[in-house]
Amino acid sequence: MRTSQFPLSTVKEIPADAEIASHKLMIRAGLIRKLAAGVYTWLPLGLRVLRKVEHIVRAEMNKAGGLEVLMPALQPAELWQETGRWEKYGPELARLKDRHDREFCLGPTHEEIITDLARHELKSYKQLPITYYQIQSKFRDEIRPRFGVMRSREFIMKDAYSFHLDQESLQATYDVMYQAYTNIFNRFGLKFRAVIADSGSIGGAVSHEFHVLAESGEDAIAFSTTSDYAANVEKAEALTPEGTRAEPTQSKTLVDTPNQHSIEDVSGFFKVDATQCLKTLIVRGENDSLVALLLRGDHELNPIKAEKIDGVLSPLQFASDEEILGACNCKPGSIGPIGLSIKIVADRGVTLMSDFICGANQDGKHYQGVNWQRDLELPDHIADLRMVVEGDPSPDGKGQITIARGIEVGHIFQLGTKYSEAMNAAIVNEAGKNQIMIMGCYGIGISRVVAAAIEQGHDERGIIWPNELAPFQVAICPMNMHKSDRLIDTVDNIYKDLTDAGIEVLLDDRKVRAGFMFSDMELIGIPHRIVIGDRGLDSGTVEYQGRMDKESQNVEFGNLVSFIKDKLA
Amino acid sequence: MRTSQFPLSTVKEIPADAEIASHKLMIRAGLIRKLAAGVYTWLPLGLRVLRKVEHIVRAEMNKAGGLEVLMPALQPAELWQETGRWEKYGPELARLKDRHDREFCLGPTHEEIITDLARHELKSYKQLPITYYQIQSKFRDEIRPRFGVMRSREFIMKDAYSFHLDQESLQATYDVMYQAYTNIFNRFGLKFRAVIADSGSIGGAVSHEFHVLAESGEDAIAFSTTSDYAANVEKAEALTPEGTRAEPTQSKTLVDTPNQHSIEDVSGFFKVDATQCLKTLIVRGENDSLVALLLRGDHELNPIKAEKIDGVLSPLQFASDEEILGACNCKPGSIGPIGLSIKIVADRGVTLMSDFICGANQDGKHYQGVNWQRDLELPDHIADLRMVVEGDPSPDGKGQITIARGIEVGHIFQLGTKYSEAMNAAIVNEAGKNQIMIMGCYGIGISRVVAAAIEQGHDERGIIWPNELAPFQVAICPMNMHKSDRLIDTVDNIYKDLTDAGIEVLLDDRKVRAGFMFSDMELIGIPHRIVIGDRGLDSGTVEYQGRMDKESQNVEFGNLVSFIKDKLA
Repeated sequence: MRTSQFPLSTVKEIPADAEIASHKLMIRAGLIRKLAAGVYTWLPLGLRVLRKVEHIVRAEMNKAGGLEVLMPALQPAELWQETGRWEKYGPELARLKDRHDREFCLGPTHEEIITDLARHELKSYKQLPITYYQIQSKFRDEIRPRFGVMRSREFIMKDAYSFHLDQESLQATYDVMYQAYTNIFNRFGLKFRAVIADSGSIGGAVSHEFHVLAESGEDAIAFSTTSDYAANVEKAEALTPEGTRAEPTQSKTLVDTPNQHSIEDVSGFFKVDATQCLKTLIVRGENDSLVALLLRGDHELNPIKAEKIDGVLSPLQFASDEEILGACNCKPGSIGPIGLSIKIVADRGVTLMSDFICGANQDGKHYQGVNWQRDLELPDHIADLRMVVEGDPSPDGKGQITIARGIEVGHIFQLGTKYSEAMNAAIVNEAGKNQIMIMGCYGIGISRVVAAAIEQGHDERGIIWPNELAPFQVAICPMNMHKSDRLIDTVDNIYKDLTDAGIEVLLDDRKVRAGFMFSDMELIGIPHRIVIGDRGLDSGTVEYQGRMDKESQNVEFGNLVSFIKDKLA
Repeated sequence: MRTSQFPLSTVKEIPADAEIASHKLMIRAGLIRKLAAGVYTWLPLGLRVLRKVEHIVRAEMNKAGGLEVLMPALQPAELWQETGRWEKYGPELARLKDRHDREFCLGPTHEEIITDLARHELKSYKQLPITYYQIQSKFRDEIRPRFGVMRSREFIMKDAYSFHLDQESLQATYDVMYQAYTNIFNRFGLKFRAVIADSGSIGGAVSHEFHVLAESGEDAIAFSTTSDYAANVEKAEALTPEGTRAEPTQSKTLVDTPNQHSIEDVSGFFKVDATQCLKTLIVRGENDSLVALLLRGDHELNPIKAEKIDGVLSPLQFASDEEILGACNCKPGSIGPIGLSIKIVADRGVTLMSDFICGANQDGKHYQGVNWQRDLELPDHIADLRMVVEGDPSPDGKGQITIARGIEVGHIFQLGTKYSEAMNAAIVNEAGKNQIMIMGCYGIGISRVVAAAIEQGHDERGIIWPNELAPFQVAICPMNMHKSDRLIDTVDNIYKDLTDAGIEVLLDDRKVRAGFMFSDMELIGIPHRIVIGDRGLDSGTVEYQGRMDKESQNVEFGNLVSFIKDKLA
């Protein structure tokens, strides 16, 4: 393509509502334009990237045995009423009535539709397992659409659904999908992690999220420095610390600590590290009880872990000051385990503490030099209560935990029978009996991948595309081409040679100065740039520079195609 | 593909609401499934066809210089209010409110959206001409969705929009699009006609419809037997008849014709051909006047032509019996031009009539043996008033008119400034002045093409796809493969050879009897079928039969690939 036939739409202005790099760059590079809040038009350059994402996803889904279908965006309310989601789904569900006053929604997802299809099309166990997928526009009326196509109201998803006779078959397809997703993200050329995840509101048990790693990512992911282990930080287990508790060296002393409430206050007051302080948190338990949770001072409570403790209310609720006063005879800043009469659960990290400081259950007083089994018993209930931190041992026993931020762009679930049961999607099994099918579902945010790739790959000059997603792989920037017939011919030949070799080339044939060309090509993120001017004609060379290279290098005309092919390999 | 990996969804039942062949066959062959009235899911087999249509359209649009974009389905009301269409568009426009009560519609078309894009992106005449296109889901809340995907509420369109500085540039792009459409329909392998059309409610002047010819088509098309001329029947001109009027042979006689009102009555009464009778119709004109329209008895009035006559009301309104009685002194069945005091407009075909019969403006009486210029003057106003019929000379002077039925699947318009004016889409012209852009628009009903192809190509056994649109080009039907290892190997080799040659093959590896396989493959319309059994192994041949062939023929293994390639060429 030549810019004369494929005009660029780069702009200087950054829209006021653009908060993150990908949103700003997608506007500036001319990939998208906003039509309404959270509703975007894809311009030609952006659509090229979007289609590449689609293409890779489709190829790998087909390879994994998926059958592509295309379901409507318009979904009748009746099906959503069968599963109860018509009532449960909030205002995110865009609803409308047709001219006959029948209710529809614009699909944010297609579980009901595919389950309806499956209960009509699938009759015998011989038809199972089967995986349908589609690449299609979805709608979600976000309360606050933001971040461009990252959280928009109309967006493109690949969604897939599998149907099975038994859990074993579901697991097998789940594994195939896990591998297909791994292939897809590898082909994108993005740094990513498959992360053990909570399945959230969609239901089901086993689930993995696929995150593109980027500093701006909304989610924190804990992963091992040496193994494949990765989990959403909330899900990552903090192992029981190794080693033994140090022997006591101090005696227990009651100390006046006026106005010292937080761990920061107390560690500052005593001039010790937060690791020497014990944090006592009071949460609500069943039957109007309270429960004390003990953590090492530098550790943060993980509410998802805490609410899974027997007897603790879920979702987690902290006790009020009055409740604490009633149970501990003091205000929150002075609580401690010594003499406490409510149930106590200690985090694993607490068990190795010695000579520690804790609240004395008297306002404005703390104990110093406290030691387990001398001054108080270790609680009966020891559990994993805390958020993991960098440097923790990896839960799989291999390496240490590192924490990175990620953008969720894929999610695979074992749905179970949630939808098939509600909609009576059954087949006849080998024994001739009706049996409800088991389902899996597998999504990728196609439009979101584009934004996530930019979050991962950009600098102050613009986008840095991986080869596989770049709208064009190579930019040719001729210097003053319009003044030199000799140059025009050479440029045309180079363009033709590269194009004939299957390389996607954008030839900048605008009458603009070199700096302008370069900054546009850097902004739109073309990975490989070739500059050629009259001087190059004499030496028979072009100047090549990769988007991330500090220096350019000369490449002879005759070697150019194989040189670029090597760069793309 | 093998049917074990790509299961067929053929069914015997014909849905009760399926009125036309394509709808029945798309359900029976497992191409689509109904989700709600006018809302369909595309199954894998149907989607393969849909994607082929898309692929051909995209390739030719790119070749014609179109820039692909992707606009949202969600369209804000504000833009439609700018053009006044928010109020004008009826209940076909699916409207909804978002959670903040802002009004949106689901786009049935994208003139407002693209014009909004253009007024922001296009600033200088140097950026023109430019053509954007997209392939995208559209919504129209039809009062009575029917005919499957032929008239559905959610469907896929290719819509393109071009922007120009002047009419000359619009005409040039229009010509390019006309040619691109011709290429597209040729590549589909369908019989079609580009038809001069009324542009209807979208506005603008010059417009062509592209019709796929099929007996079940909703539109009648008049086209020349020898030239490219084709027009919607309403648009086709009936030329002034050649030759001269015969000399009178009868004298004018007043005849009692009790209860003879219609042309059929009168011609039967007089035992003459309807061509010998003059038809007089009274329509309303401006300022409460009436106008008499004269036609030859066998000719049918074309209301579109009549309402363009000076002084005639548009849309056409026939006079009431009372109005006729007041102006002609008789009831409708006895009107004639002799002595009539209202304005008379005669169709061109009337001028060559002689010795004709017409009403006498007295109830129950007609004149016989009437002749122009002897018994009455030829009217001052002679015009083209009638529908053309088969055998009429073609308006372009080449050949005769034939009438065929067609399904409109494409439409190209010269829109002019209807939208750009309303939305102030202007660029700076060469003189440095703001100038409103001129627009063209160009649509193809992608999903409709699939149905139209079936309307054109089917028989009592099923669909007959052209090679280019077939979901698979070749079906391999092995006979009792599962009982013969030798056969399995040979079938695998044939499958591999054909697939490696880039041919799309569906290998039926189901354990079903031959008749079942054949009827499925005929139902889903695979153009080329290869049957191979144990006997063929001995002779080294397969049985080939084209979908339309009466007989099969033997083809040697070694020649099969080139044989099939010839068939596909």
